[in-house]
Amino acid sequence: MATINQNYAALQGSYLFQEIGRRVEAFTKENAKLRLIRLGIGDVKLPIVPSVLDALVNASREMGVMETFRGYPPSAGYDFLIHAIQQNEYAPLGVSLQQDEIFVSDGAKSDTANFQELFETSSVAAICNPVYPVYVDSNIMEGRNIVYLPCDAANGFLPPLPDVPVDMIYLCSPNNPTGAAFTAAQLSSWVEYAKRNEAVIFYDAAYRAYIQSEQTPSSIYQIDGAKEVAVEFCSFSKGAGFTGLRCAWTVVPHENRWGLNKLWARRMATKFNGVAYPVQRAAEASLSPNGKTQTAEQIVYYKENACVLKEALVQKGIAVFGGTDAPYLWARCPEGMDGWSWFNWLLRQKGIVVTPGEGFGSCGAGYVRFSSFATREDVEEAVGRLT
Amino acid sequence: MATINQNYAALQGSYLFQEIGRRVEAFTKENAKLRLIRLGIGDVKLPIVPSVLDALVNASREMGVMETFRGYPPSAGYDFLIHAIQQNEYAPLGVSLQQDEIFVSDGAKSDTANFQELFETSSVAAICNPVYPVYVDSNIMEGRNIVYLPCDAANGFLPPLPDVPVDMIYLCSPNNPTGAAFTAAQLSSWVEYAKRNEAVIFYDAAYRAYIQSEQTPSSIYQIDGAKEVAVEFCSFSKGAGFTGLRCAWTVVPHENRWGLNKLWARRMATKFNGVAYPVQRAAEASLSPNGKTQTAEQIVYYKENACVLKEALVQKGIAVFGGTDAPYLWARCPEGMDGWSWFNWLLRQKGIVVTPGEGFGSCGAGYVRFSSFATREDVEEAVGRLT
Repeated sequence: MATINQNYAALQGSYLFQEIGRRVEAFTKENAKLRLIRLGIGDVKLPIVPSVLDALVNASREMGVMETFRGYPPSAGYDFLIHAIQQNEYAPLGVSLQQDEIFVSDGAKSDTANFQELFETSSVAAICNPVYPVYVDSNIMEGRNIVYLPCDAANGFLPPLPDVPVDMIYLCSPNNPTGAAFTAAQLSSWVEYAKRNEAVIFYDAAYRAYIQSEQTPSSIYQIDGAKEVAVEFCSFSKGAGFTGLRCAWTVVPHENRWGLNKLWARRMATKFNGVAYPVQRAAEASLSPNGKTQTAEQIVYYKENACVLKEALVQKGIAVFGGTDAPYLWARCPEGMDGWSWFNWLLRQKGIVVTPGEGFGSCGAGYVRFSSFATREDVEEAVGRLT
Repeated sequence: MATINQNYAALQGSYLFQEIGRRVEAFTKENAKLRLIRLGIGDVKLPIVPSVLDALVNASREMGVMETFRGYPPSAGYDFLIHAIQQNEYAPLGVSLQQDEIFVSDGAKSDTANFQELFETSSVAAICNPVYPVYVDSNIMEGRNIVYLPCDAANGFLPPLPDVPVDMIYLCSPNNPTGAAFTAAQLSSWVEYAKRNEAVIFYDAAYRAYIQSEQTPSSIYQIDGAKEVAVEFCSFSKGAGFTGLRCAWTVVPHENRWGLNKLWARRMATKFNGVAYPVQRAAEASLSPNGKTQTAEQIVYYKENACVLKEALVQKGIAVFGGTDAPYLWARCPEGMDGWSWFNWLLRQKGIVVTPGEGFGSCGAGYVRFSSFATREDVEEAVGRLT
């Protein structure tokens, strides 16, 4: 008799953004007139930039011609894209990576969810609270014990080193949802901790394109010794507007202590079959000189959104964190409200969708996340409604 | 201290097609002059058909315009594609499915590898031998016990019902690698067995577009009661030439006994983020009237390849199975040769790449798989070299 994986029973209700979607849909049905401003899910709004679009269309056309058609992609990505990542995302940081240390995939979500498979179920995961729900849910599905690292205003929303033994450490910087980011010194203390305790660091740098502070590293490999203990997850989603095209990469250095590079290569070859050729050409184009210029303009646009929103909220007396190295604002709820009640109030009174902090974990209570992934018009309309 | 998933140590060397790739590459380096004819990996060779290509290019262009840009896709697929699958792939068979019973993904490989996660590690998997290696490897990675069902010439390469208790049954029809296909009566006996033993059937129908025998069902849901016990995996890869574009679907009926529909939806929402919008539009177009006509022509082309190859092999006195409802020929090795030695001989003497039967399991010993995914020229050249 087939028996269901009982760990699924331990999952909290439904996935956060689906729950928000349901509440928004219910409200919209009752109130067809109020145009909603969506600052909830972190989904980009600006179209694919011209140089990336050209590459996408041209590579699509290649698929229609016998001589240029391509079948199965390599399961870890085409060399042309891996090379572009290596040369544009790491070489300028002084980080030297081999081609086979970079794995192209369909999303940092998939990779951050799947990477834990390489470790025993008995390994303990250390996860920040509040946090991107995928780290938690993927470990619960595996039946793994989780140690939560509380992040609050007192520690600048940056996790404290664990005070009990842990084996797998999830760090996200710039952080989703709080917008906080590690300095090199702070990140070094984590690398040292991991080396001392033989723990592996899962470093989610999906928002690295938004870093502007000089002391904030873009890659964990800018920290000495990080290759021994850390894997790094990055994405074209937020840097190049690829949420709808699906492309990301994960770095698994040969030098790490567990032989993860070979294991991840095996996992990718067995359970994945690569990313569509036109999407990989589009991703490559986002790293070309024109692509970099055009996508950088979009990042500036979103960051200006964050500034405008932050200023308006601060003027209303709201305490706001993040927004400097990240596209997210982490805003403390007005006196007497928790995240879901402010969420409901903003939805019903102002027609603004945000994400309640509770959705990211118990320590997110009393906060909501504002996303700056919106058009400037929408941000200004939201500011108008808020003031 | 982080500990590696020890199940990975139980995996056989490297993934079959990577091993073949290595051998072919080594040979090519030594023998640059001989043009290789690749009848090994089952990768399509004909370009994307015109109506599908138009949809792919047009949807790509939509991504470059603010008004038509789309961000995150629904994690289980766009309604337009699910509707097209429902209406074109199931309604004509008399199989009624609800929209939320169909899940769009990046590949049947990913889905057949991942679906086992929904079951306890203690559930026993029944897997044919020979078999597509992904079923085996994904279960070994999970530490699951496997019962092998031997398929040979005596049983027409169709698995016998298990004689020990099993919980999860992997069936592939039309079969990769043997090309055998179940009749409705044979498949019914499996559905009955599964119901009697409360076992779940993972039905891989990735090659259903190649079925021509009237008694061979295209979907397991054509069998009474199958919705209670079976999930079905299908793909655009072989039917519409999507190996390089990555799109597939999995059917998980509400009526099954384990509540799998909700669990799979949760798994998809947590560990996956949907398929690129242009790829989903392309897949939809393959189910349009023009798309169906054009892709059907490609299938006829490949099936004629299978005919030509089969005839040539038979004339050489080789016993050949499959090729009727499937794009694969399963050929018995000449006297005194095993699969790897015939593989080496065909590679080194004839410049023809096939897949050795041993790569699909111990019962594949003494056979090789010829794929008909090739140009007609290459097939004719191969026939010339063989005779």
